[in-house]
Amino acid sequence: MKDKLHFIGVIGGSEVSPEIAQLAEEVGREIARRGAALVCGGLGGVMEAACKGAGEEGGLTIGILPGESRRSANPYVQIPIVTGIGYARNVAVVKSSRAVIAIDGSYGTLAEIGHALQSGIPVIGLGTWAISMDGKEDNKIIVAKNPKEAVEKAFSLIGNQE
Amino acid sequence: MKDKLHFIGVIGGSEVSPEIAQLAEEVGREIARRGAALVCGGLGGVMEAACKGAGEEGGLTIGILPGESRRSANPYVQIPIVTGIGYARNVAVVKSSRAVIAIDGSYGTLAEIGHALQSGIPVIGLGTWAISMDGKEDNKIIVAKNPKEAVEKAFSLIGNQE
Amino acid sequence: MKDKLHFIGVIGGSEVSPEIAQLAEEVGREIARRGAALVCGGLGGVMEAACKGAGEEGGLTIGILPGESRRSANPYVQIPIVTGIGYARNVAVVKSSRAVIAIDGSYGTLAEIGHALQSGIPVIGLGTWAISMDGKEDNKIIVAKNPKEAVEKAFSLIGNQE
Amino acid sequence: MKDKLHFIGVIGGSEVSPEIAQLAEEVGREIARRGAALVCGGLGGVMEAACKGAGEEGGLTIGILPGESRRSANPYVQIPIVTGIGYARNVAVVKSSRAVIAIDGSYGTLAEIGHALQSGIPVIGLGTWAISMDGKEDNKIIVAKNPKEAVEKAFSLIGNQE
Repeated sequence: MKDKLHFIGVIGGSEVSPEIAQLAEEVGREIARRGAALVCGGLGGVMEAACKGAGEEGGLTIGILPGESRRSANPYVQIPIVTGIGYARNVAVVKSSRAVIAIDGSYGTLAEIGHALQSGIPVIGLGTWAISMDGKEDNKIIVAKNPKEAVEKAFSLIGNQE
Repeated sequence: MKDKLHFIGVIGGSEVSPEIAQLAEEVGREIARRGAALVCGGLGGVMEAACKGAGEEGGLTIGILPGESRRSANPYVQIPIVTGIGYARNVAVVKSSRAVIAIDGSYGTLAEIGHALQSGIPVIGLGTWAISMDGKEDNKIIVAKNPKEAVEKAFSLIGNQE
Repeated sequence: MKDKLHFIGVIGGSEVSPEIAQLAEEVGREIARRGAALVCGGLGGVMEAACKGAGEEGGLTIGILPGESRRSANPYVQIPIVTGIGYARNVAVVKSSRAVIAIDGSYGTLAEIGHALQSGIPVIGLGTWAISMDGKEDNKIIVAKNPKEAVEKAFSLIGNQE
Repeated sequence: MKDKLHFIGVIGGSEVSPEIAQLAEEVGREIARRGAALVCGGLGGVMEAACKGAGEEGGLTIGILPGESRRSANPYVQIPIVTGIGYARNVAVVKSSRAVIAIDGSYGTLAEIGHALQSGIPVIGLGTWAISMDGKEDNKIIVAKNPKEAVEKAFSLIGNQE
């Protein structure tokens, strides 16, 4: 099972608009349709919507929680990991993923994007942050136009890894 | 799935004798036979033997890894969680479990026992540490005589929780 | 002592050009001249240069290290904190600071900026990342033109806090 | 400064009897008298009493806090490190110390003792846990009869390290 199951991370804010939640749900569905497991921070907003979508398609959902109790997980998390380490759990969310899809985004999402790029994990962005230095855009955050394209890009990028 | 799946932790040293490994493997088998998922630190020794046993009985195995790569997981881990936080991941192993079974034991296992008791998570001991203060034994580590009894006690204790 | 000593964080890459190192050293000097303690990740590059500058002016330097040994600290760290939690220690660097000054910047610095903004800690940027969403720049990273201005802005921002 | 300043950890419960608090305060005083800095978890009980004692003798006190705010530090902490990683900060307390003195002790103290022994950091016990396996006491926790002896033993043990 280990060799076959890919883990795709979905990162984004815990409070989002219905439009963003719909995008996240569709990303979750696409990940599950392609047979990968979904990794996220386990809470609400983008995380909950993505887990809901993945679950509807029979996919596996893993929530790496910041707090002290599995009860803080959204109802669509099947594997709750209770870290008790607060926001530092963001590092575990990205490191456990072969690629991450960033949707919309709070500053916490920006932190996760930074951790992912620092660790060499591909980041696909769907309406998320753009970053630049000295007026020059950094193109490491790969832009996707819609949920399907985001998941396709994520899979094509992990295909190049071992 | 979330409501039905119980998570039982197995903690113990990463380098152990064949006798201890056999105990751990049998603990893993019993956990899987009873339909629970096994949570551990994902490395060798007790962790690997327990995952092997659980996998043979069709159980789910989760390894919460200290390092930076899923490749450090033993071959029987199905869900590798890559934390990158070193020994501090021990806290996540115990907090993600409804009860933990401590087998044999290095000082790392002692730390995990302390974290579990601090968090109110039942600890069942199989040839592991005993602790005392002022010459008086603390009986919070529940002693089991064999793998079957250890797993039975773990399940009876989580039965009392919500 | 606790009430009087302010902690200012300095974040930036561990391998930088001599020009960037000089900026960081000057930032460290300014922080010490104003009587604040310097908090950083304790390693090389921006962190080392800033500690060197602060030390030259008699300032206190705190290095919150990712690894397992105080020997990994740069020679100008006076208070080495050994976390053993890897990159997750970035969270501790920013949370221990009243304001952070980001210089140049790797992706790790981007992660630290995200953690700081998420926690409501002011970020002053000196030749570092700019962030935008939907083509609109987010102005939460306060731009400084030189080390002196960066430190002045940091102090003016913490003045508004309790 | 770095080469001269030794860091001695003091670990123990956050709610203790006046007798235990007095022991902790005396340990803090002795550490400061010998010119070392005191490292602890920064909260109440043993930690607060030890910081109070150290401060009275002009010593430096470092509190590595579990939560999100420096305001949770006891009033005698001079250098508050805000980790935001909860109980996992215990790892940082012991790793930042050349030796740790365990006083009395909750289960959290037991976890810290385990982390210290796992990392090869000497542990001196003052009315704290004893540990045994297979009915045989493990003598790695070095027993001290009083605060002065505890601190003397701590210094003699770090003397053997680089």
